[in-house]
Amino acid sequence: MENPFFKNTGPHKLNKLLKLINFKDQNSSDFVVNDIKDLSTSEIGDITFFHSKKYLSFAKTTKASFCITTENLKEFLPKNCKAIVSENVLLNTAQITQIFYPESTIDNFDDTVEDINKTEFKNKVKFGKNILIGKNVKIGSNCSIGHNTIIEKNVIIGDKCSIGSNVIIRNSLIENNVHILDRCVIGKKGFGFFPNKDSNLRYPQIGVVIIRDNVEIGCGATIDRGSLSNTIIGKNTFLDNQIHIAHNVKIGENCVIAGQVGFAGSSTIGNNVFIGGQAGISGHIKIGNNVQIGGGSGVIKDISDNTKVMGYPAKNIKQFLKENK
Amino acid sequence: MENPFFKNTGPHKLNKLLKLINFKDQNSSDFVVNDIKDLSTSEIGDITFFHSKKYLSFAKTTKASFCITTENLKEFLPKNCKAIVSENVLLNTAQITQIFYPESTIDNFDDTVEDINKTEFKNKVKFGKNILIGKNVKIGSNCSIGHNTIIEKNVIIGDKCSIGSNVIIRNSLIENNVHILDRCVIGKKGFGFFPNKDSNLRYPQIGVVIIRDNVEIGCGATIDRGSLSNTIIGKNTFLDNQIHIAHNVKIGENCVIAGQVGFAGSSTIGNNVFIGGQAGISGHIKIGNNVQIGGGSGVIKDISDNTKVMGYPAKNIKQFLKENK
Amino acid sequence: MENPFFKNTGPHKLNKLLKLINFKDQNSSDFVVNDIKDLSTSEIGDITFFHSKKYLSFAKTTKASFCITTENLKEFLPKNCKAIVSENVLLNTAQITQIFYPESTIDNFDDTVEDINKTEFKNKVKFGKNILIGKNVKIGSNCSIGHNTIIEKNVIIGDKCSIGSNVIIRNSLIENNVHILDRCVIGKKGFGFFPNKDSNLRYPQIGVVIIRDNVEIGCGATIDRGSLSNTIIGKNTFLDNQIHIAHNVKIGENCVIAGQVGFAGSSTIGNNVFIGGQAGISGHIKIGNNVQIGGGSGVIKDISDNTKVMGYPAKNIKQFLKENK
Repeated sequence: MENPFFKNTGPHKLNKLLKLINFKDQNSSDFVVNDIKDLSTSEIGDITFFHSKKYLSFAKTTKASFCITTENLKEFLPKNCKAIVSENVLLNTAQITQIFYPESTIDNFDDTVEDINKTEFKNKVKFGKNILIGKNVKIGSNCSIGHNTIIEKNVIIGDKCSIGSNVIIRNSLIENNVHILDRCVIGKKGFGFFPNKDSNLRYPQIGVVIIRDNVEIGCGATIDRGSLSNTIIGKNTFLDNQIHIAHNVKIGENCVIAGQVGFAGSSTIGNNVFIGGQAGISGHIKIGNNVQIGGGSGVIKDISDNTKVMGYPAKNIKQFLKENK
Repeated sequence: MENPFFKNTGPHKLNKLLKLINFKDQNSSDFVVNDIKDLSTSEIGDITFFHSKKYLSFAKTTKASFCITTENLKEFLPKNCKAIVSENVLLNTAQITQIFYPESTIDNFDDTVEDINKTEFKNKVKFGKNILIGKNVKIGSNCSIGHNTIIEKNVIIGDKCSIGSNVIIRNSLIENNVHILDRCVIGKKGFGFFPNKDSNLRYPQIGVVIIRDNVEIGCGATIDRGSLSNTIIGKNTFLDNQIHIAHNVKIGENCVIAGQVGFAGSSTIGNNVFIGGQAGISGHIKIGNNVQIGGGSGVIKDISDNTKVMGYPAKNIKQFLKENK
Repeated sequence: MENPFFKNTGPHKLNKLLKLINFKDQNSSDFVVNDIKDLSTSEIGDITFFHSKKYLSFAKTTKASFCITTENLKEFLPKNCKAIVSENVLLNTAQITQIFYPESTIDNFDDTVEDINKTEFKNKVKFGKNILIGKNVKIGSNCSIGHNTIIEKNVIIGDKCSIGSNVIIRNSLIENNVHILDRCVIGKKGFGFFPNKDSNLRYPQIGVVIIRDNVEIGCGATIDRGSLSNTIIGKNTFLDNQIHIAHNVKIGENCVIAGQVGFAGSSTIGNNVFIGGQAGISGHIKIGNNVQIGGGSGVIKDISDNTKVMGYPAKNIKQFLKENK
């Protein structure tokens, strides 16, 4: 599917790309690159990146034609994938992504919005006062939108959804029977950048937020869009108030997540996971199915299926309660 | 007092109620039920529910005429109260509450609101721009309301109150000299539902938020209304920014609660309680008077009067500091 | 520099001040007091306060002509500074500050705002819908302001700044290339007051928020203005979503602060500090340069330069991980 939010300026010639980022070892050949994606979603003709052994299994099977990687990691790439050896994989990836998607690091307000009374939704949606709708927004049947809410360009909302008041939604695909309560901000650029003295360098954020059927999102959530992959909330998952979900997080189905929980970037949560209030989930970890995490816990490593944990760092709940009688 | 926010559709006949929820053991008699309430607030003619020994003292003295309960708990009910034995007390309670209060699980925007300039408050209240006021709202003298704020139908605000900008208030009774700062959302439905594969079942939320005299509530609070009882903030209690208070929480007088503290549902906090930043209070616990809770603590059991605690789980503060020198 | 936000009603005669606060030991002399400031920023002719040995080094070198202090602390003041011995230093300081700055404890909405279309910024700034701008606001070149945002009176914004949607800014000085994302509330009065049965006494908050060049502030932050000093965010510091910064906090340059972190009042953070998600920093502590604080940590004492800490309370990260294997 074409990305509805960030327009791909490609294809670009590989040697042009390497020249633009002042890459030392510039390639003289005439390869053409279609797009930049992550290891698992790349297709033939795409460029991808591989910077940590953590992603070894994805690297081995990537379909990408080119991969920015390190001297040490290049040997793991399949034959179809040409390694571009870099001393700073993430920086070069950011620079190339910025060439393909130049608007992906800016989150200025949507200047295409109009008052909902001037749009096709005037007679189609139940709505409050002072609502702004961007260009090419799609909204299904039987939806309701509260006061002062802003739905930015290209957002797609399914049927039977209710959006609260003072909500901002951008870069998001929302399925059916989803309930987003007051004051949420959904689809903002993630907190991804390369720290750099005096002026940090923003990492492109071209992913979206996908919210599946029957999800409820409590007041005041912030859910950031993905960087190269997407942020996903699975079917029938319910979130309480003031939750923060960083970029690329994937939450499964039928989860219950209590107030003020925070997810750092790129973690994956299984199905039927219960998380107590104020718990924190570190970045880049994997939580299995049917896991229960006690309130206030700090989860800093993978949790296997059917486990109950609590504590900071989180451990088996029986052990935690025994140690803390 | 009649509930100003959720209209009771009762009285209903008991056998009709049991039939509507497909109750197996349907009662053939012709009893009439006036209302559904919790154990302590029920009156003669009401139906209530009793699902845990935790509520034994309330069960023994309930005035309710009917009680949804379990085979094991029914023996504790007084003679005046007829047990309705259920295999899923909370589910059946939710279903019956939904019959009495069909609108209590929906929190769509208030479609009765008008611009404050078109209301009686135009010459009575000091107000900013773009303010929306619902039907039957009452506001006392010497009040101030900031920009973009929404006061939904039936809300009652006393004298000398200031409401900030971008605030949303619904289903709330606010007394005198109360200060609610920018961006609060007060009176939303609580995070109460029965997890159910593919489509969770919402638990009715017919309680209100009551905010007593001289309270100050910092920016960005979320305070949910009660489910069957109320959420209450006691006199002269001050809350800092970004606090989350779940349904049915009752906070006493003269408390000081620092930033980002979270309260899970149905806990009771005494008077003169100090709570440091980011502390979390579990659900269904009781914190006494004159308690001090250190910042970052996780309180998972009752705390008696005049105690200082800290830690996760919270323990005596001297012990905590000694163990963590 | 004259305080652009809170007008100083001084100079006042010292004996008048002491009389107004019903000070027991009223001074019969005819001294004149220009202003009230903290120990380090006071100049000749000003009154200051000194209530804890923690501030001894500042007390010894204060330029203030008068100082509210205790019997025990007065001996540390320099000769140029006349001690005014009080039994409740903070209370008397609050009372005198209120005389100099009577509007500093109120945070009602700014009633000078106008729709941006009616202001000089109409042709100077890129802006969305429903934006309100207060009197004497200054905004530099190449700025962008999102929908429903409120910039209150006297706020100064530099060049190349972007302000998101639903933002509220007051009592703040914002330098160049600063990015403030959606839903932030910046410059609110701090959570400073003297607990007092039935009716707490608000402590004056005459400081501002200063945000230096190249800073990015994530969605939903609350950053309170200073009480007698200022709240400062240093150059090129990036903050993620839902962060809370209390009054008088000073954060250095090139810091990276993840989601939901909270800072209690008056702490100082050095340069190049990395703080993981949900960490909490206690009040009145000092964190050095190049410090790394793990997610979820609770920092309750000073941290020296070049240290990595984690835990609650935070300790050396190696020790923490070893103890929690």
